[in-house]
Amino acid sequence: MTQDPISLVPIGRVRGGRSEVIDDDWGGNRSTIDLDPQTFTPDALAGLGDFSHVEVIFFFDKVPEAKIETGARHPRGRQDWPMVGIFAQRGKNRPNRLGLCTCRVVGVQGLSLQVEGLDAIDGTPVLDIKPVMTGFLPRGEVREPAWAAEIMADYW
Amino acid sequence: MTQDPISLVPIGRVRGGRSEVIDDDWGGNRSTIDLDPQTFTPDALAGLGDFSHVEVIFFFDKVPEAKIETGARHPRGRQDWPMVGIFAQRGKNRPNRLGLCTCRVVGVQGLSLQVEGLDAIDGTPVLDIKPVMTGFLPRGEVREPAWAAEIMADYW
Repeated sequence: MTQDPISLVPIGRVRGGRSEVIDDDWGGNRSTIDLDPQTFTPDALAGLGDFSHVEVIFFFDKVPEAKIETGARHPRGRQDWPMVGIFAQRGKNRPNRLGLCTCRVVGVQGLSLQVEGLDAIDGTPVLDIKPVMTGFLPRGEVREPAWAAEIMADYW
Repeated sequence: MTQDPISLVPIGRVRGGRSEVIDDDWGGNRSTIDLDPQTFTPDALAGLGDFSHVEVIFFFDKVPEAKIETGARHPRGRQDWPMVGIFAQRGKNRPNRLGLCTCRVVGVQGLSLQVEGLDAIDGTPVLDIKPVMTGFLPRGEVREPAWAAEIMADYW
């Protein structure tokens, strides 16, 4: 299986909000996503204010390649949680270093989307923004292991 | 704002399931995501079977660059729906051509993750898999415009 690389160009950057990488307490974090004015006009965000939430795909640019995990590890290094594969957890040291967060839309102004609860720091490259549609939420009951609930206890 | 390109390498491919790009009826679509055996061992998927759902980030490799929309358009070309920005809709002709789908975990076998309801066709490059944790679902009430519910009526 040969896998040709795919080249992506950030659509913009996270501006403001938290500037340090910290595990918890992201809930009240307010920031904006500023679209690149060389590529976009405010048209790109038209109508986004009619949605309460967006999904943001971003790039963990502070993670060095050498730290990427391709196998299994304890989430957050917690020995009391099971060893699980990198694709069974959401940690940032992952192949392709993609982050994904559902956050609240505060407002849209020109090329800026103001959000609350985006778990990406100031300066983070953003790759995509998608509106949350109820039809795209999980279909059927959501089941998760106990550690997955514990890890989120203080996250927001 | 200069935006250096980011190079990603697919972690694997979608195998099986639907092979034609069709807008609707994805709900019963069963396929597998086969991880690249040159990079991964089954460890990478360890514990994923304890989750009912995953989020899959993939690349719409069939969309030609010339078709990418950077401004606003009617979703699916429907004139009776409003003109909205490309980041206020989930269509595939979008900057960076990233797809994102929440689908059901059917099972894990070696380097293969079997899923149901993944809206990506056979052969699609996959960039990331994340487990759905209830703590990462939208916080607060989800609000969306009427067209967003209409567009999903026959999707699954």
